[in-house]
Amino acid sequence: MRNINHETVTQAVLASMSNCASERLLSVMKGLVQHLHAFASEVKLTEDEWFNAIQFLTEVGAMTNDNRQEFVLLSDTLGLSMLVTAQNNRKPAACTEATVLGPFYVAGAPEFDNGDDISNGAPGVPCFVSGTVRGLSGGPVAGASLDIWQSDEDGFYDVQKVPDALGDVTHRARGRLHTRADGSFNFRSILAEPYSVPHDGPVGRMLATLGRPPWRPAHLHFWIRAQGYEPLITHVFRNDDPYLDSDPVFGVRSTLITDWIKHGAGVMPDGSVSTTEFYTLDYDFVLNPLGNMA
Amino acid sequence: MRNINHETVTQAVLASMSNCASERLLSVMKGLVQHLHAFASEVKLTEDEWFNAIQFLTEVGAMTNDNRQEFVLLSDTLGLSMLVTAQNNRKPAACTEATVLGPFYVAGAPEFDNGDDISNGAPGVPCFVSGTVRGLSGGPVAGASLDIWQSDEDGFYDVQKVPDALGDVTHRARGRLHTRADGSFNFRSILAEPYSVPHDGPVGRMLATLGRPPWRPAHLHFWIRAQGYEPLITHVFRNDDPYLDSDPVFGVRSTLITDWIKHGAGVMPDGSVSTTEFYTLDYDFVLNPLGNMA
Repeated sequence: MRNINHETVTQAVLASMSNCASERLLSVMKGLVQHLHAFASEVKLTEDEWFNAIQFLTEVGAMTNDNRQEFVLLSDTLGLSMLVTAQNNRKPAACTEATVLGPFYVAGAPEFDNGDDISNGAPGVPCFVSGTVRGLSGGPVAGASLDIWQSDEDGFYDVQKVPDALGDVTHRARGRLHTRADGSFNFRSILAEPYSVPHDGPVGRMLATLGRPPWRPAHLHFWIRAQGYEPLITHVFRNDDPYLDSDPVFGVRSTLITDWIKHGAGVMPDGSVSTTEFYTLDYDFVLNPLGNMA
Repeated sequence: MRNINHETVTQAVLASMSNCASERLLSVMKGLVQHLHAFASEVKLTEDEWFNAIQFLTEVGAMTNDNRQEFVLLSDTLGLSMLVTAQNNRKPAACTEATVLGPFYVAGAPEFDNGDDISNGAPGVPCFVSGTVRGLSGGPVAGASLDIWQSDEDGFYDVQKVPDALGDVTHRARGRLHTRADGSFNFRSILAEPYSVPHDGPVGRMLATLGRPPWRPAHLHFWIRAQGYEPLITHVFRNDDPYLDSDPVFGVRSTLITDWIKHGAGVMPDGSVSTTEFYTLDYDFVLNPLGNMA
Protein backbone atom coordinates (compact mmCIF):
# COMPACT_ATOMS: atom_id res chain seq x y z
CA MET A 1 0.00 0.00 0.00
CA ARG A 2 2.98 2.36 0.34
CA ASN A 3 4.33 1.84 -3.16
CA ILE A 4 1.34 1.33 -5.39
CA ASN A 5 2.02 1.91 -9.07
CA HIS A 6 -0.01 1.73 -12.25
CA GLU A 7 0.44 -2.03 -12.34
CA THR A 8 -0.50 -2.83 -8.72
CA VAL A 9 -3.29 -0.33 -8.02
CA THR A 10 -6.06 -2.56 -9.40
CA GLN A 11 -5.17 -5.41 -7.05
CA ALA A 12 -4.97 -2.94 -4.13
CA VAL A 13 -8.50 -1.68 -4.82
CA LEU A 14 -9.88 -5.21 -5.07
CA ALA A 15 -8.15 -6.16 -1.81
CA SER A 16 -9.62 -3.12 -0.03
CA MET A 17 -13.14 -4.51 -0.56
CA SER A 18 -12.52 -7.88 1.09
CA ASN A 19 -14.75 -7.00 4.06
CA CYS A 20 -17.82 -6.34 1.91
CA ALA A 21 -20.81 -8.18 3.40
CA SER A 22 -22.66 -8.62 0.11
CA GLU A 23 -21.23 -11.22 -2.24
CA ARG A 24 -23.21 -9.82 -5.16
CA LEU A 25 -22.10 -6.22 -4.57
CA LEU A 26 -18.50 -7.40 -4.25
CA SER A 27 -18.72 -9.23 -7.54
CA VAL A 28 -20.25 -6.22 -9.35
CA MET A 29 -17.70 -3.80 -7.89
CA LYS A 30 -14.78 -6.08 -8.73
CA GLY A 31 -15.96 -6.24 -12.33
CA LEU A 32 -16.41 -2.47 -12.42
CA VAL A 33 -12.96 -1.69 -11.01
CA GLN A 34 -11.20 -4.19 -13.26
CA HIS A 35 -12.84 -2.86 -16.43
CA LEU A 36 -12.50 0.79 -15.41
CA HIS A 37 -8.78 0.31 -14.80
CA ALA A 38 -8.27 -1.79 -17.93
CA PHE A 39 -9.96 0.94 -19.97
CA ALA A 40 -7.80 3.76 -18.53
CA SER A 41 -4.70 1.65 -18.91
CA GLU A 42 -5.33 0.42 -22.46
CA VAL A 43 -6.16 3.86 -23.88
CA LYS A 44 -3.40 5.43 -21.73
CA LEU A 45 -5.85 7.99 -20.40
CA THR A 46 -4.06 11.29 -19.79
CA GLU A 47 -4.56 13.59 -16.82
CA ASP A 48 -6.20 16.22 -19.05
CA GLU A 49 -8.62 13.61 -20.37
CA TRP A 50 -9.39 12.51 -16.81
CA PHE A 51 -10.09 16.16 -15.86
CA ASN A 52 -12.36 16.50 -18.89
CA ALA A 53 -14.22 13.34 -17.91
CA ILE A 54 -14.73 14.66 -14.36
CA GLN A 55 -15.96 17.95 -15.82
CA PHE A 56 -18.27 16.12 -18.23
CA LEU A 57 -19.82 14.02 -15.45
CA THR A 58 -20.18 17.14 -13.31
CA GLU A 59 -22.14 18.78 -16.13
CA VAL A 60 -24.28 15.65 -16.57
CA GLY A 61 -25.06 15.83 -12.86
CA ALA A 62 -25.88 19.53 -12.98
CA MET A 63 -28.26 18.95 -15.91
CA THR A 64 -30.14 16.18 -14.10
CA ASN A 65 -33.27 16.88 -12.04
CA ASP A 66 -36.68 15.33 -11.41
CA ASN A 67 -37.73 16.15 -14.98
CA ARG A 68 -34.50 15.55 -16.86
CA GLN A 69 -32.34 12.46 -16.56
CA GLU A 70 -29.07 13.19 -18.37
CA PHE A 71 -27.41 10.08 -16.83
CA VAL A 72 -30.09 7.86 -18.37
CA LEU A 73 -29.57 9.66 -21.69
CA LEU A 74 -25.84 9.00 -21.38
CA SER A 75 -26.44 5.33 -20.63
CA ASP A 76 -28.90 5.15 -23.55
CA THR A 77 -26.56 6.76 -26.08
CA LEU A 78 -23.65 4.54 -25.00
CA GLY A 79 -25.81 1.48 -25.65
CA LEU A 80 -25.61 0.39 -22.01
CA SER A 81 -29.36 0.70 -21.44
CA MET A 82 -30.18 -1.50 -24.43
CA LEU A 83 -27.59 -4.07 -23.36
CA VAL A 84 -29.05 -4.26 -19.85
CA THR A 85 -32.61 -4.38 -21.22
CA ALA A 86 -31.74 -7.11 -23.72
CA GLN A 87 -29.84 -9.37 -21.34
CA ASN A 88 -32.58 -9.17 -18.70
CA ASN A 89 -35.59 -9.66 -20.98
CA ARG A 90 -34.95 -12.88 -22.81
CA LYS A 91 -38.33 -14.53 -23.30
CA PRO A 92 -40.31 -16.66 -25.73
CA ALA A 93 -40.50 -15.17 -29.22
CA ALA A 94 -44.29 -14.83 -28.96
CA CYS A 95 -43.94 -12.25 -26.16
CA THR A 96 -43.70 -8.54 -26.93
CA GLU A 97 -40.07 -7.43 -26.89
CA ALA A 98 -38.76 -4.89 -24.39
CA THR A 99 -36.75 -1.81 -25.22
CA VAL A 100 -35.15 1.08 -23.36
CA LEU A 101 -37.01 3.15 -20.76
CA GLY A 102 -35.48 6.41 -21.94
CA PRO A 103 -34.89 9.57 -19.92
CA PHE A 104 -38.45 10.97 -20.02
CA TYR A 105 -40.41 8.54 -17.90
CA VAL A 106 -41.63 10.20 -14.72
CA ALA A 107 -43.62 8.67 -11.89
CA GLY A 108 -47.03 10.03 -10.95
CA ALA A 109 -48.61 10.44 -14.40
CA PRO A 110 -52.34 11.35 -14.35
CA GLU A 111 -54.92 8.53 -14.39
CA PHE A 112 -57.28 8.18 -17.34
CA ASP A 113 -60.23 5.98 -18.34
CA ASN A 114 -60.35 4.04 -21.58
CA GLY A 115 -61.49 6.34 -24.37
CA ASP A 116 -60.02 9.48 -22.77
CA ASP A 117 -57.82 11.96 -24.58
CA ILE A 118 -54.45 11.84 -22.80
CA SER A 119 -52.88 14.57 -24.96
CA ASN A 120 -54.22 17.31 -22.64
CA GLY A 121 -53.58 19.93 -25.31
CA ALA A 122 -50.17 18.73 -26.52
CA PRO A 123 -49.85 19.89 -30.16
CA GLY A 124 -50.06 17.20 -32.84
CA VAL A 125 -52.17 15.33 -35.34
CA PRO A 126 -54.92 13.36 -33.55
CA CYS A 127 -54.10 9.68 -33.09
CA PHE A 128 -56.39 6.96 -31.74
CA VAL A 129 -54.65 4.03 -30.09
CA SER A 130 -56.24 0.68 -29.30
CA GLY A 131 -55.08 -2.81 -28.50
CA THR A 132 -55.19 -5.68 -26.06
CA VAL A 133 -52.90 -7.06 -23.40
CA ARG A 134 -52.71 -10.86 -23.29
CA GLY A 135 -50.59 -13.43 -21.55
CA LEU A 136 -48.34 -15.86 -23.38
CA SER A 137 -51.11 -18.48 -23.23
CA GLY A 138 -53.43 -16.13 -25.12
CA GLY A 139 -55.78 -15.24 -22.27
CA PRO A 140 -56.68 -11.58 -21.69
CA VAL A 141 -54.94 -9.69 -18.91
CA ALA A 142 -57.58 -7.63 -17.11
CA GLY A 143 -56.68 -4.60 -15.02
CA ALA A 144 -53.13 -4.31 -16.37
CA SER A 145 -51.80 -0.80 -15.81
CA LEU A 146 -50.40 0.97 -18.86
CA ASP A 147 -48.11 3.97 -18.41
CA ILE A 148 -48.01 5.81 -21.73
CA TRP A 149 -45.80 8.75 -22.69
CA GLN A 150 -44.64 10.41 -25.90
CA SER A 151 -43.30 13.62 -27.43
CA ASP A 152 -45.44 16.17 -29.25
CA GLU A 153 -45.22 17.31 -32.88
CA ASP A 154 -42.47 19.79 -31.94
CA GLY A 155 -40.38 16.91 -30.64
CA PHE A 156 -40.71 17.69 -26.94
CA TYR A 157 -42.00 15.70 -23.99
CA ASP A 158 -44.09 17.59 -21.42
CA VAL A 159 -41.22 17.39 -18.90
CA GLN A 160 -38.96 19.29 -21.31
CA LYS A 161 -41.20 22.37 -21.13
CA VAL A 162 -40.45 25.25 -18.79
CA PRO A 163 -41.85 24.39 -15.34
CA ASP A 164 -44.25 26.75 -13.56
CA ALA A 165 -43.28 28.93 -10.61
CA LEU A 166 -43.58 25.92 -8.28
CA GLY A 167 -41.26 23.86 -10.45
CA ASP A 168 -44.11 21.66 -11.71
CA VAL A 169 -44.85 20.77 -15.31
CA THR A 170 -48.32 20.16 -16.71
CA HIS A 171 -48.53 16.53 -17.85
CA ARG A 172 -49.40 16.30 -21.53
CA ALA A 173 -49.44 13.26 -23.80
CA ARG A 174 -48.69 11.22 -20.70
CA GLY A 175 -51.00 9.12 -18.57
CA ARG A 176 -51.91 5.82 -17.00
CA LEU A 177 -54.95 3.66 -17.74
CA HIS A 178 -56.01 0.06 -17.16
CA THR A 179 -57.16 -2.74 -19.43
CA ARG A 180 -60.79 -3.84 -19.36
CA ALA A 181 -61.92 -7.37 -18.37
CA ASP A 182 -61.26 -8.59 -21.93
CA GLY A 183 -57.70 -7.17 -21.91
CA SER A 184 -58.59 -4.32 -24.27
CA PHE A 185 -57.66 -0.67 -23.95
CA ASN A 186 -58.04 2.44 -26.08
CA PHE A 187 -57.27 6.12 -25.80
CA ARG A 188 -56.84 9.26 -27.87
CA SER A 189 -53.53 11.07 -28.10
CA ILE A 190 -51.42 12.67 -30.84
CA LEU A 191 -49.26 11.23 -33.57
CA ALA A 192 -45.72 10.37 -32.44
CA GLU A 193 -43.10 12.14 -34.57
CA PRO A 194 -39.32 11.73 -34.87
CA TYR A 195 -37.39 13.98 -32.53
CA SER A 196 -33.86 14.83 -31.54
CA VAL A 197 -32.66 13.61 -28.16
CA PRO A 198 -31.94 16.68 -26.01
CA HIS A 199 -28.78 18.29 -27.32
CA ASP A 200 -28.65 21.34 -25.07
CA GLY A 201 -26.59 19.41 -22.53
CA PRO A 202 -23.30 17.50 -22.28
CA VAL A 203 -24.69 14.32 -23.88
CA GLY A 204 -25.88 16.28 -26.92
CA ARG A 205 -22.40 17.81 -27.16
CA MET A 206 -20.88 14.32 -26.95
CA LEU A 207 -23.06 13.07 -29.81
CA ALA A 208 -22.15 16.09 -31.95
CA THR A 209 -18.44 15.62 -31.26
CA LEU A 210 -18.71 11.94 -32.19
CA GLY A 211 -20.50 12.83 -35.44
CA ARG A 212 -23.62 10.93 -34.36
CA PRO A 213 -27.09 12.07 -35.52
CA PRO A 214 -29.42 12.80 -32.58
CA TRP A 215 -32.72 11.81 -34.29
CA ARG A 216 -34.86 9.10 -32.75
CA PRO A 217 -37.51 7.39 -34.88
CA ALA A 218 -41.07 8.25 -33.78
CA HIS A 219 -42.44 6.03 -31.03
CA LEU A 220 -44.99 5.70 -28.28
CA HIS A 221 -43.73 4.49 -24.87
CA PHE A 222 -45.52 1.81 -22.84
CA TRP A 223 -44.76 0.45 -19.39
CA ILE A 224 -47.22 -2.35 -18.71
CA ARG A 225 -47.57 -3.92 -15.28
CA ALA A 226 -49.89 -6.79 -14.31
CA GLN A 227 -50.01 -9.24 -11.42
CA GLY A 228 -48.30 -12.53 -12.27
CA TYR A 229 -46.43 -11.17 -15.31
CA GLU A 230 -43.04 -9.66 -15.95
CA PRO A 231 -43.32 -5.89 -16.35
CA LEU A 232 -42.92 -4.78 -19.97
CA ILE A 233 -41.14 -1.53 -20.84
CA THR A 234 -41.27 -0.95 -24.57
CA HIS A 235 -42.00 1.37 -27.51
CA VAL A 236 -44.20 1.04 -30.60
CA PHE A 237 -42.54 2.48 -33.75
CA ARG A 238 -43.93 3.73 -37.10
CA ASN A 239 -42.95 1.67 -40.14
CA ASP A 240 -42.67 4.78 -42.35
CA ASP A 241 -40.01 6.42 -40.18
CA PRO A 242 -36.74 7.58 -41.82
CA TYR A 243 -34.68 7.06 -38.64
CA LEU A 244 -35.43 3.40 -37.88
CA ASP A 245 -31.90 2.44 -38.92
CA SER A 246 -30.00 5.11 -36.98
CA ASP A 247 -31.63 5.27 -33.54
CA PRO A 248 -29.10 7.03 -31.24
CA VAL A 249 -30.21 4.84 -28.31
CA PHE A 250 -30.19 1.54 -30.25
CA GLY A 251 -33.79 0.79 -29.18
CA VAL A 252 -35.50 -0.33 -32.40
CA ARG A 253 -36.86 -3.88 -32.65
CA SER A 254 -38.39 -5.04 -35.93
CA THR A 255 -41.26 -6.67 -33.99
CA LEU A 256 -42.15 -3.30 -32.45
CA ILE A 257 -42.56 -1.55 -35.82
CA THR A 258 -46.12 -1.40 -37.13
CA ASP A 259 -48.52 0.51 -39.41
CA TRP A 260 -49.97 3.71 -38.06
CA ILE A 261 -52.91 4.26 -40.45
CA LYS A 262 -53.60 7.70 -41.87
CA HIS A 263 -57.23 8.74 -42.38
CA GLY A 264 -58.62 11.76 -44.22
CA ALA A 265 -60.82 14.36 -42.57
CA GLY A 266 -64.09 12.96 -41.28
CA VAL A 267 -65.61 11.16 -38.34
CA MET A 268 -63.00 9.96 -35.85
CA PRO A 269 -63.27 6.78 -33.72
CA ASP A 270 -64.63 8.78 -30.78
CA GLY A 271 -67.50 10.12 -32.92
CA SER A 272 -66.18 13.66 -33.24
CA VAL A 273 -65.54 15.16 -36.65
CA SER A 274 -62.07 16.15 -37.78
CA THR A 275 -61.51 18.70 -40.54
CA THR A 276 -57.93 17.46 -40.91
CA GLU A 277 -56.33 14.05 -41.20
CA PHE A 278 -55.92 11.77 -38.20
CA TYR A 279 -54.20 8.46 -37.46
CA THR A 280 -55.15 5.16 -35.84
CA LEU A 281 -52.80 2.63 -34.28
CA ASP A 282 -53.82 -0.84 -33.15
CA TYR A 283 -51.22 -2.94 -31.35
CA ASP A 284 -51.49 -6.01 -29.14
CA PHE A 285 -49.09 -6.77 -26.32
CA VAL A 286 -48.19 -10.23 -25.03
CA LEU A 287 -46.81 -10.47 -21.50
CA ASN A 288 -44.47 -13.14 -20.20
CA PRO A 289 -45.59 -14.92 -17.01
CA LEU A 290 -43.31 -14.19 -14.05
CA GLY A 291 -40.30 -16.46 -13.89
CA ASN A 292 -40.76 -17.84 -17.41
CA MET A 293 -37.28 -17.27 -18.84
CA ALA A 294 -36.61 -18.27 -22.45
CA MET B 1 -30.01 -1.74 -36.32
CA ARG B 2 -33.57 -3.10 -36.17
CA ASN B 3 -32.76 -6.28 -34.31
CA ILE B 4 -29.95 -5.42 -31.96
CA ASN B 5 -29.53 -7.87 -29.10
CA HIS B 6 -27.20 -8.18 -26.12
CA GLU B 7 -24.54 -9.70 -28.36
CA THR B 8 -24.63 -7.16 -31.20
CA VAL B 9 -25.24 -3.88 -29.37
CA THR B 10 -21.54 -3.22 -28.69
CA GLN B 11 -20.65 -3.42 -32.38
CA ALA B 12 -23.61 -1.16 -33.22
CA VAL B 13 -22.41 1.52 -30.81
CA LEU B 14 -18.86 1.36 -32.18
CA ALA B 15 -20.18 1.62 -35.74
CA SER B 16 -22.28 4.67 -34.85
CA MET B 17 -19.11 6.64 -34.06
CA SER B 18 -17.44 6.09 -37.44
CA ASN B 19 -17.87 9.76 -38.41
CA CYS B 20 -15.95 11.07 -35.39
CA ALA B 21 -13.41 13.66 -36.55
CA SER B 22 -10.94 13.08 -33.72
CA GLU B 23 -8.96 9.86 -33.90
CA ARG B 24 -7.96 10.12 -30.26
CA LEU B 25 -11.53 10.70 -29.02
CA LEU B 26 -12.72 7.79 -31.14
CA SER B 27 -10.09 5.52 -29.63
CA VAL B 28 -10.94 6.57 -26.05
CA MET B 29 -14.68 6.18 -26.62
CA LYS B 30 -14.27 2.79 -28.26
CA GLY B 31 -12.30 1.57 -25.27
CA LEU B 32 -14.90 3.00 -22.90
CA VAL B 33 -17.86 1.42 -24.67
CA GLN B 34 -16.18 -1.96 -24.99
CA HIS B 35 -15.22 -2.12 -21.31
CA LEU B 36 -18.54 -0.70 -20.11
CA HIS B 37 -20.42 -3.33 -22.08
CA ALA B 38 -18.06 -6.14 -21.12
CA PHE B 39 -18.53 -5.18 -17.46
CA ALA B 40 -22.35 -5.17 -17.65
CA SER B 41 -22.33 -8.39 -19.60
CA GLU B 42 -19.85 -10.30 -17.43
CA VAL B 43 -21.54 -9.44 -14.13
CA LYS B 44 -24.96 -9.85 -15.76
CA LEU B 45 -26.03 -6.44 -14.48
CA THR B 46 -29.75 -6.48 -13.65
CA GLU B 47 -32.23 -3.71 -14.43
CA ASP B 48 -32.58 -2.95 -10.69
CA GLU B 49 -28.81 -2.63 -10.38
CA TRP B 50 -28.75 -0.34 -13.41
CA PHE B 51 -31.48 1.83 -11.81
CA ASN B 52 -29.46 1.94 -8.59
CA ALA B 53 -26.35 2.97 -10.50
CA ILE B 54 -28.27 5.79 -12.23
CA GLN B 55 -29.62 6.89 -8.86
CA PHE B 56 -26.14 6.72 -7.33
CA LEU B 57 -24.60 8.86 -10.08
CA THR B 58 -27.51 11.30 -9.79
CA GLU B 59 -26.73 11.67 -6.08
CA VAL B 60 -23.01 12.12 -6.81
CA GLY B 61 -23.98 14.88 -9.24
CA ALA B 62 -26.31 16.57 -6.76
CA MET B 63 -23.56 16.53 -4.10
CA THR B 64 -21.02 18.16 -6.40
CA ASN B 65 -20.51 21.94 -6.52
CA ASP B 66 -17.66 24.44 -6.72
CA ASN B 67 -16.50 23.46 -3.22
CA ARG B 68 -17.22 19.72 -3.24
CA GLN B 69 -16.13 17.32 -5.96
CA GLU B 70 -17.89 14.01 -5.28
CA PHE B 71 -16.96 12.68 -8.75
CA VAL B 72 -13.26 13.18 -7.95
CA LEU B 73 -13.81 11.43 -4.63
CA LEU B 74 -15.48 8.56 -6.48
CA SER B 75 -12.58 8.34 -8.93
CA ASP B 76 -10.12 8.50 -6.02
CA THR B 77 -11.79 5.76 -3.99
CA LEU B 78 -12.05 3.49 -7.04
CA GLY B 79 -8.30 3.84 -7.57
CA LEU B 80 -8.80 5.43 -11.00
CA SER B 81 -7.16 8.72 -10.00
CA MET B 82 -4.04 6.98 -8.72
CA LEU B 83 -3.85 4.83 -11.85
CA VAL B 84 -4.07 7.90 -14.12
CA THR B 85 -1.57 9.79 -11.96
CA ALA B 86 0.89 6.89 -11.93
CA GLN B 87 0.78 6.11 -15.64
CA ASN B 88 1.25 9.78 -16.58
CA ASN B 89 4.03 10.61 -14.14
CA ARG B 90 6.77 8.10 -14.77
CA LYS B 91 10.03 9.90 -14.25
CA PRO B 92 13.57 9.39 -12.96
CA ALA B 93 13.69 8.00 -9.43
CA ALA B 94 15.43 11.14 -8.16
CA CYS B 95 12.34 13.25 -8.93
CA THR B 96 9.62 13.73 -6.32
CA GLU B 97 6.76 11.31 -6.93
CA ALA B 98 3.27 12.51 -7.81
CA THR B 99 0.07 11.45 -6.10
CA VAL B 100 -3.65 12.16 -6.37
CA LEU B 101 -5.07 15.68 -6.53
CA GLY B 102 -8.01 14.81 -4.30
CA PRO B 103 -11.42 16.48 -4.22
CA PHE B 104 -10.48 19.55 -2.15
CA TYR B 105 -8.26 21.53 -4.47
CA VAL B 106 -9.92 24.79 -5.49
CA ALA B 107 -8.60 27.46 -7.82
CA GLY B 108 -8.06 31.00 -6.61
CA ALA B 109 -6.36 30.38 -3.27
CA PRO B 110 -5.02 33.51 -1.53
CA GLU B 111 -1.43 34.61 -2.23
CA PHE B 112 1.13 34.64 0.60
CA ASP B 113 4.75 35.63 1.09
CA ASN B 114 7.39 33.30 2.46
CA GLY B 115 7.19 33.25 6.24
CA ASP B 116 3.46 34.01 6.34
CA ASP B 117 0.92 32.03 8.37
CA ILE B 118 -1.42 30.45 5.82
CA SER B 119 -3.67 28.84 8.45
CA ASN B 120 -5.80 32.02 8.72
CA GLY B 121 -7.26 30.80 12.00
CA ALA B 122 -7.84 27.13 11.10
CA PRO B 123 -7.69 25.15 14.35
CA GLY B 124 -4.61 22.99 14.94
CA VAL B 125 -1.18 22.59 16.46
CA PRO B 126 1.25 25.11 14.90
CA CYS B 127 3.47 23.65 12.21
CA PHE B 128 6.36 25.34 10.41
CA VAL B 129 7.09 24.08 6.93
CA SER B 130 10.26 24.73 4.95
CA GLY B 131 12.05 23.25 1.97
CA THR B 132 13.48 23.85 -1.46
CA VAL B 133 12.39 23.21 -5.01
CA ARG B 134 15.15 21.98 -7.31
CA GLY B 135 15.38 20.61 -10.82
CA LEU B 136 16.59 17.09 -11.58
CA SER B 137 20.09 18.49 -12.24
CA GLY B 138 20.20 19.90 -8.70
CA GLY B 139 19.85 23.57 -9.54
CA PRO B 140 17.37 25.70 -7.58
CA VAL B 141 14.03 26.55 -9.18
CA ALA B 142 13.33 30.22 -8.48
CA GLY B 143 9.79 31.63 -8.63
CA ALA B 144 8.07 28.24 -8.66
CA SER B 145 4.48 28.61 -7.50
CA LEU B 146 3.35 26.33 -4.68
CA ASP B 147 -0.35 25.75 -4.09
CA ILE B 148 -0.71 24.32 -0.59
CA TRP B 149 -3.87 22.99 1.06
CA GLN B 150 -4.69 20.77 4.02
CA SER B 151 -7.38 19.84 6.53
CA ASP B 152 -7.55 21.21 10.07
CA GLU B 153 -7.35 19.31 13.36
CA ASP B 154 -11.07 18.48 13.15
CA GLY B 155 -10.46 16.76 9.84
CA PHE B 156 -12.09 19.36 7.62
CA TYR B 157 -10.84 21.45 4.72
CA ASP B 158 -12.00 25.07 4.55
CA VAL B 159 -14.25 24.27 1.60
CA GLN B 160 -16.15 21.75 3.72
CA LYS B 161 -17.32 24.49 6.07
CA VAL B 162 -20.73 26.14 5.71
CA PRO B 163 -20.43 28.91 3.10
CA ASP B 164 -21.50 32.48 3.90
CA ALA B 165 -24.67 34.11 2.59
CA LEU B 166 -22.97 34.74 -0.76
CA GLY B 167 -21.96 31.09 -1.09
CA ASP B 168 -18.31 31.88 -0.43
CA VAL B 169 -16.03 30.13 2.03
CA THR B 170 -13.18 31.76 3.90
CA HIS B 171 -9.92 30.18 2.77
CA ARG B 172 -8.05 28.67 5.69
CA ALA B 173 -4.94 26.48 5.67
CA ARG B 174 -4.82 27.05 1.92
CA GLY B 175 -2.67 29.40 -0.09
CA ARG B 176 -0.14 30.01 -2.81
CA LEU B 177 3.42 31.23 -2.48
CA HIS B 178 6.59 31.29 -4.58
CA THR B 179 10.11 30.04 -4.10
CA ARG B 180 12.94 32.51 -3.54
CA ALA B 181 15.92 32.88 -5.89
CA ASP B 182 17.66 29.98 -4.15
CA GLY B 183 14.61 27.70 -4.56
CA SER B 184 13.71 27.87 -0.88
CA PHE B 185 10.29 28.46 0.64
CA ASN B 186 8.82 28.48 4.14
CA PHE B 187 5.50 29.17 5.77
CA ARG B 188 3.56 28.59 8.96
CA SER B 189 0.42 26.49 9.04
CA ILE B 190 -1.05 23.80 11.31
CA LEU B 191 -0.22 20.15 11.81
CA ALA B 192 -1.90 17.84 9.27
CA GLU B 193 -3.99 15.16 11.00
CA PRO B 194 -5.64 11.97 9.71
CA TYR B 195 -9.21 12.52 8.59
CA SER B 196 -12.12 10.65 7.15
CA VAL B 197 -12.99 11.29 3.52
CA PRO B 198 -16.45 12.91 3.41
CA HIS B 199 -19.00 10.23 4.26
CA ASP B 200 -22.15 12.32 4.26
CA GLY B 201 -22.63 11.61 0.56
CA PRO B 202 -23.06 8.68 -1.82
CA VAL B 203 -19.33 7.86 -1.97
CA GLY B 204 -19.18 7.63 1.84
CA ARG B 205 -22.17 5.29 1.72
CA MET B 206 -20.41 3.21 -0.93
CA LEU B 207 -17.29 2.87 1.24
CA ALA B 208 -19.40 1.85 4.26
CA THR B 209 -21.30 -0.73 2.22
CA LEU B 210 -18.03 -2.15 0.91
CA GLY B 211 -16.64 -2.39 4.44
CA ARG B 212 -13.84 0.04 3.61
CA PRO B 213 -12.41 2.37 6.27
CA PRO B 214 -12.67 6.06 5.28
CA TRP B 215 -9.53 7.29 7.10
CA ARG B 216 -6.81 8.99 5.13
CA PRO B 217 -3.32 9.28 6.64
CA ALA B 218 -2.39 12.89 7.51
CA HIS B 219 -0.85 14.83 4.64
CA LEU B 220 -0.10 18.25 3.24
CA HIS B 221 -1.01 18.88 -0.42
CA PHE B 222 1.36 20.58 -2.86
CA TRP B 223 0.82 21.58 -6.47
CA ILE B 224 4.10 22.98 -7.77
CA ARG B 225 4.35 24.75 -11.13
CA ALA B 226 7.48 26.20 -12.70
CA GLN B 227 8.48 27.20 -16.21
CA GLY B 228 10.31 24.41 -18.03
CA TYR B 229 9.28 21.65 -15.59
CA GLU B 230 6.44 19.17 -15.39
CA PRO B 231 3.86 20.29 -12.85
CA LEU B 232 3.99 18.24 -9.66
CA ILE B 233 0.82 17.37 -7.74
CA THR B 234 1.70 15.52 -4.58
CA HIS B 235 1.31 15.10 -0.79
CA VAL B 236 3.79 14.91 2.08
CA PHE B 237 2.83 12.28 4.69
CA ARG B 238 3.76 11.81 8.38
CA ASN B 239 5.77 8.71 9.17
CA ASP B 240 3.98 8.16 12.51
CA ASP B 241 0.56 7.87 10.93
CA PRO B 242 -1.58 4.78 11.69
CA TYR B 243 -3.39 4.86 8.33
CA LEU B 244 -0.43 4.77 5.94
CA ASP B 245 -1.28 1.19 4.96
CA SER B 246 -5.00 1.66 4.39
CA ASP B 247 -5.38 4.90 2.45
CA PRO B 248 -8.88 4.83 0.87
CA VAL B 249 -7.58 6.69 -2.19
CA PHE B 250 -4.41 4.58 -2.63
CA GLY B 251 -2.23 7.71 -2.65
CA VAL B 252 0.64 6.83 -0.28
CA ARG B 253 4.19 6.65 -1.67
CA SER B 254 7.02 5.60 0.64
CA THR B 255 9.19 8.41 -0.76
CA LEU B 256 6.59 10.99 0.29
CA ILE B 257 6.62 9.90 3.97
CA THR B 258 8.88 11.91 6.23
CA ASP B 259 9.49 13.02 9.82
CA TRP B 260 7.41 15.86 11.14
CA ILE B 261 9.40 16.89 14.23
CA LYS B 262 7.60 17.64 17.48
CA HIS B 263 8.99 20.43 19.69
CA GLY B 264 8.07 21.35 23.26
CA ALA B 265 6.73 24.76 24.23
CA GLY B 266 9.18 27.56 23.56
CA VAL B 267 10.42 29.88 20.86
CA MET B 268 9.07 28.94 17.43
CA PRO B 269 10.92 29.41 14.11
CA ASP B 270 9.15 32.72 13.49
CA GLY B 271 10.42 34.08 16.82
CA SER B 272 7.10 33.97 18.64
CA VAL B 273 6.76 31.98 21.85
CA SER B 274 4.45 28.98 22.10
CA THR B 275 3.11 27.75 25.44
CA THR B 276 2.20 24.43 23.78
CA GLU B 277 4.03 22.01 21.53
CA PHE B 278 4.56 22.73 17.84
CA TYR B 279 5.90 20.86 14.81
CA THR B 280 8.41 21.50 12.05
CA LEU B 281 8.54 19.84 8.64
CA ASP B 282 11.37 20.22 6.16
CA TYR B 283 10.95 18.63 2.74
CA ASP B 284 12.71 19.17 -0.58
CA PHE B 285 11.04 18.73 -3.94
CA VAL B 286 12.76 17.73 -7.18
CA LEU B 287 11.00 18.63 -10.44
CA ASN B 288 11.33 16.78 -13.71
CA PRO B 289 12.25 18.91 -16.75
CA LEU B 290 9.43 19.09 -19.32
CA GLY B 291 9.45 16.19 -21.75
CA ASN B 292 11.95 14.12 -19.74
CA MET B 293 10.05 10.82 -19.47
CA ALA B 294 11.62 7.97 -17.55
